[in-house]
Amino acid sequence: MDKKDEKITINFEPISRRVFLSIDKSLYETLVKIGINIKSLCGGLGTCGKCRLLVQKGNRFFNPPTNAEKKFINEKDLEKGYRLACQTRINKNFIQKLEESNAPQFRVFLPDELLFEDFKILTSGINKGVKLNPAIKKIFVEVKKPTLETPIADLERINASVLSNDLDLTLNYPINIEFDLLKKLPKILREKNHGITITQWNEDKIIALEPGNTKEDNFGIAFDIGTTTIVGYLINLNNGKIYSLASKLNPQTAYGEDVITRITYIKDNENGLQTLNSIVIGALNDIILKTCSKAKITPSQIYEATIVGNSVMHHIFLGINPINIGLSPYVPVVQQGLNVKSKNLNLNINSQGNVYVLPLIAGFVGADTMGVIISSDIENENELTLAIDIGTNGEIIIGNNEFLLTGSCAAGSALEGAHIKDGMRAAAGSIDSIRIEPKNLEVKYTTIKNRTPLGICGSGLIDAIAEMLKSNIITRSGNFNKNIIDHERFIKNDKSIEFILVKKDETSLDKDITLTQGDIRQLQMAKAAFYSGARLILKDLNQNNIKNQKDEYEIKQIFLAGAFGNYINKENAKFIGMIPDISNDKIFQIGNAAGIGAQNCLLNKDLRKKAQKLLNKIQYVEIAIKKDFQREYASAMYFPHLNLDHFPNLKEYENIPKR
Amino acid sequence: MDKKDEKITINFEPISRRVFLSIDKSLYETLVKIGINIKSLCGGLGTCGKCRLLVQKGNRFFNPPTNAEKKFINEKDLEKGYRLACQTRINKNFIQKLEESNAPQFRVFLPDELLFEDFKILTSGINKGVKLNPAIKKIFVEVKKPTLETPIADLERINASVLSNDLDLTLNYPINIEFDLLKKLPKILREKNHGITITQWNEDKIIALEPGNTKEDNFGIAFDIGTTTIVGYLINLNNGKIYSLASKLNPQTAYGEDVITRITYIKDNENGLQTLNSIVIGALNDIILKTCSKAKITPSQIYEATIVGNSVMHHIFLGINPINIGLSPYVPVVQQGLNVKSKNLNLNINSQGNVYVLPLIAGFVGADTMGVIISSDIENENELTLAIDIGTNGEIIIGNNEFLLTGSCAAGSALEGAHIKDGMRAAAGSIDSIRIEPKNLEVKYTTIKNRTPLGICGSGLIDAIAEMLKSNIITRSGNFNKNIIDHERFIKNDKSIEFILVKKDETSLDKDITLTQGDIRQLQMAKAAFYSGARLILKDLNQNNIKNQKDEYEIKQIFLAGAFGNYINKENAKFIGMIPDISNDKIFQIGNAAGIGAQNCLLNKDLRKKAQKLLNKIQYVEIAIKKDFQREYASAMYFPHLNLDHFPNLKEYENIPKR
Repeated sequence: MDKKDEKITINFEPISRRVFLSIDKSLYETLVKIGINIKSLCGGLGTCGKCRLLVQKGNRFFNPPTNAEKKFINEKDLEKGYRLACQTRINKNFIQKLEESNAPQFRVFLPDELLFEDFKILTSGINKGVKLNPAIKKIFVEVKKPTLETPIADLERINASVLSNDLDLTLNYPINIEFDLLKKLPKILREKNHGITITQWNEDKIIALEPGNTKEDNFGIAFDIGTTTIVGYLINLNNGKIYSLASKLNPQTAYGEDVITRITYIKDNENGLQTLNSIVIGALNDIILKTCSKAKITPSQIYEATIVGNSVMHHIFLGINPINIGLSPYVPVVQQGLNVKSKNLNLNINSQGNVYVLPLIAGFVGADTMGVIISSDIENENELTLAIDIGTNGEIIIGNNEFLLTGSCAAGSALEGAHIKDGMRAAAGSIDSIRIEPKNLEVKYTTIKNRTPLGICGSGLIDAIAEMLKSNIITRSGNFNKNIIDHERFIKNDKSIEFILVKKDETSLDKDITLTQGDIRQLQMAKAAFYSGARLILKDLNQNNIKNQKDEYEIKQIFLAGAFGNYINKENAKFIGMIPDISNDKIFQIGNAAGIGAQNCLLNKDLRKKAQKLLNKIQYVEIAIKKDFQREYASAMYFPHLNLDHFPNLKEYENIPKR
Repeated sequence: MDKKDEKITINFEPISRRVFLSIDKSLYETLVKIGINIKSLCGGLGTCGKCRLLVQKGNRFFNPPTNAEKKFINEKDLEKGYRLACQTRINKNFIQKLEESNAPQFRVFLPDELLFEDFKILTSGINKGVKLNPAIKKIFVEVKKPTLETPIADLERINASVLSNDLDLTLNYPINIEFDLLKKLPKILREKNHGITITQWNEDKIIALEPGNTKEDNFGIAFDIGTTTIVGYLINLNNGKIYSLASKLNPQTAYGEDVITRITYIKDNENGLQTLNSIVIGALNDIILKTCSKAKITPSQIYEATIVGNSVMHHIFLGINPINIGLSPYVPVVQQGLNVKSKNLNLNINSQGNVYVLPLIAGFVGADTMGVIISSDIENENELTLAIDIGTNGEIIIGNNEFLLTGSCAAGSALEGAHIKDGMRAAAGSIDSIRIEPKNLEVKYTTIKNRTPLGICGSGLIDAIAEMLKSNIITRSGNFNKNIIDHERFIKNDKSIEFILVKKDETSLDKDITLTQGDIRQLQMAKAAFYSGARLILKDLNQNNIKNQKDEYEIKQIFLAGAFGNYINKENAKFIGMIPDISNDKIFQIGNAAGIGAQNCLLNKDLRKKAQKLLNKIQYVEIAIKKDFQREYASAMYFPHLNLDHFPNLKEYENIPKR
């Protein structure tokens, strides 16, 4: 049985967790056993139909749909692989085949509504303070009625009344008004006795006319569309306060974890772009409904949305084909900031609402990075600052009040739990911090929501590596220290060595949670990508020596943005050599800076002009084509670096062997 | 039979001609007999189905649909009253009822496609010369391809290439581009090796991107939407030449001859606005196809349309409810000039094309009058000029380079043949000019297209009245001269006296074409409306004496615009007292000045700004509320006027009795 069990590993998405499935257990029983709370009213009897999930790979090895499934799932969905978790188990007829086949792949997608637990999605961040000056302005005006002596048209009377009432609104004449609105004008004007509320966008266009006084109902929503997660912030545009927020996993993960896989999906499927576009719009509309319901408003009271996201998310959201971002020389279709009508995007805010999308910097440095730049105000720093945004992709910004350089590094998704044997996303049950006692190699850890440990997420991984270095478990080249691999926390077999982080009996997984040599390599690659990326951009700067100053430019300050940027132990991030060796009080965790950028642009329209202007200041550096790339990357694979001179303050390394 | 025949009068639209129907003749036979050529392949056998028409009133008195009709017309259309002309005749069972009922009304609408003959629609006019400066500009550019060193986005590379090639085009950055176009950009750019043609609107927005060089295909279309007729002029925007034109009757006439009836239809029918809007759009799209086919281009090569029309036509065309134009104080929804996307109007030009609609002046002084003002350049005249636009409604403009006043007069539709016993529209067979020999009262006439006379149209009517005055047939008060009513050209019966213009044997109508006392009254009212309207506006001007000059303002020059304005004998128009008594060489017939205004705005976008600016200069005078209205109107009912001092040069009146 053990050998067989080993083969039946189910990859559960979107938590990115691989879990053993016993041949005598249903998917429901397995998920419950390992502590993933899924929705069910009947407790697995097949009578409530709530535990619906999608088997994306390997459905042929499961039992055929049962009558219970046929009752709750239509034929088309059954064909697509939708199942009830409680009805789905390995088809015993196929056990032979399973043994024969070479580790068949199983991939099961847990729909958002199935998961009770919210993910640990970073929604907060540091807002450097932004003046309230939204693009949306609402005013109430009592319009003069026409007479035979002054038979002025409806629209022109609105103009005259705005002028004569000295209201806080400037209308240019001819008035810029949505045509659809003009058609409704005579009815709206007469509905509440010629009293109407005008909603103006960008000091220019009338985008809404409402009968009576509705000035108080004035909302906007800021979205951060990440490859993995989407967050929406509902903001009252009259006072700038966040009234509610909601987040959810990007449902596009069902079509690929990373942007390249999604581009491939679009390339290979005729309606691929449309499919991915409509599900992301659907997710945003879910968030709109959630935030509106929390704030007790209706979506029609939201007049504007602002959007950040990487270039591929940006394109797919807009329904623009991102295919050329995936092909050398990796160009997007458009970089400039865009204003699009909500109805052209099917976004469920006010039907005449505006959607502002922040500009892109390059194919792999997107509107999210622009959001980071806007919210961190890095372009006004005196000291040379390195900002890194650690999401599914890694973006690097180096700059100050004189210049700004950006680049993208292929950090891989190790920090999101991918390609790590027991890795997982930062969800309930994931180990997010670790301490190792050097004397006895005892491991202390915390998990998100204090649940039974299920796997390890990015911040836990960085801690684990740093602690393993300090405890001499691994060397500076990332190898296990051969002197102690006989310790009881090591598992050795022909193929590999693993270090046990959590023993089997502390989990519900029927196995230990370990770190393998391969896991360490994955983290080395990720951290080397960030460090060498920053080095290469800095080199570029020094070679072109913009100000012709004598001394070389050096990083004086670090901003860590993004989910991991906020949760990781900055000391340990520096210790493993992911970021340069500067004083801790010069390292700032600025949270979801991209999302804050979207919020700021919603609160103050001048920041959109600023973002547009910054496109001229920002230089994009294509890191991968630099001639030193290979050497810099290889040197940065060491902990903290091949050349210890880079990290003069990390005295602990004196006692850590190189190989 | 004679008595019965008298009752069965069919009113044929859109030619506005009442014709007797014999009870033993089909509609087809009747139409053929009186010389109205209608489409038929089988010659009335009921086998081709081509002679389809719409019985709008009185269908219940016709025979039930025959098998032939059931074959060619679907049930729904049969219910609406569609028939085949050759199958439709009086149901003999109803003859008794016909005799009993008090002159039941029959109204038959001849669809446009049924009529062989084109109407006499005025399409030409005087173009005072306009500089070519269209809103549409097309340029071809070879866009630089991206490289790893310069991985610039598609749109931004277009911008860079336009800048570096020093092309005759200015793009502001960020670029204003239609969102739909942006989505197509990557494909279009790569279709012809990065060579694309950019179409820019108003030095601002990119509205089209086409692969390769399509600079030469650059067209616009100017429309004049009249209550009765619609004309379209297809113009090459690269050289300003009219490539083709087409006209047709406004199919809205099926729902009412005048704007008030159409407003009533909209008020009384839930989808009335939508119905009238879609048929006028359909007519415009027909004209677009016709003009394109003549010029051998496709509608997608038309990037802009300009529109003039009276306020009600303007609103219905835009799908804006005109209901308040029909109610005191007669206000439109909007006055300013508008730019609307063609696709928002379902107008079949380029899908991203622009539709510019000229501004309205008031509820009854529309964009057509603005077109007259723009093309006649009246605002630059030194001499005080009176311009009248004689269409279904009458508009009056008085002004010069210092001021402009406008008003609308209820001229009625006598000049279009309505309410005139043998009146009809200016179609083939209508009498359009008349001379009467005073000695023997012999009448000489011409007809449109030299066809057998069918009725009399506006210009013929003015001639007839003037000639009857000169021949002493009628007096200055419009009564028949009792001294000569025994002449053989008079028909007298108990009720009325009629003057025979064309004797029965010269027509195919089985009756004489005559003018009745009532007909003369109709014309008196029409001409009095124009003259008194102009007088009242002039009075308004003199009372408010804008420049405080000592002498009263006097009309020094007259522009006659519109179809009748062009075809009428200006001498006779003055003789009957329709226009002031000034020298003939100061009376100019400027043709379809409204349509020319639309053309000029298409050719030179600066004229749109001018039209917008003129809204400030133009004063609208509500003629009907002036206290002198009644007196002025009554005095102007006389030929040429109650007070002969108004017409000192018409010496002939010395010999014409007053009553």
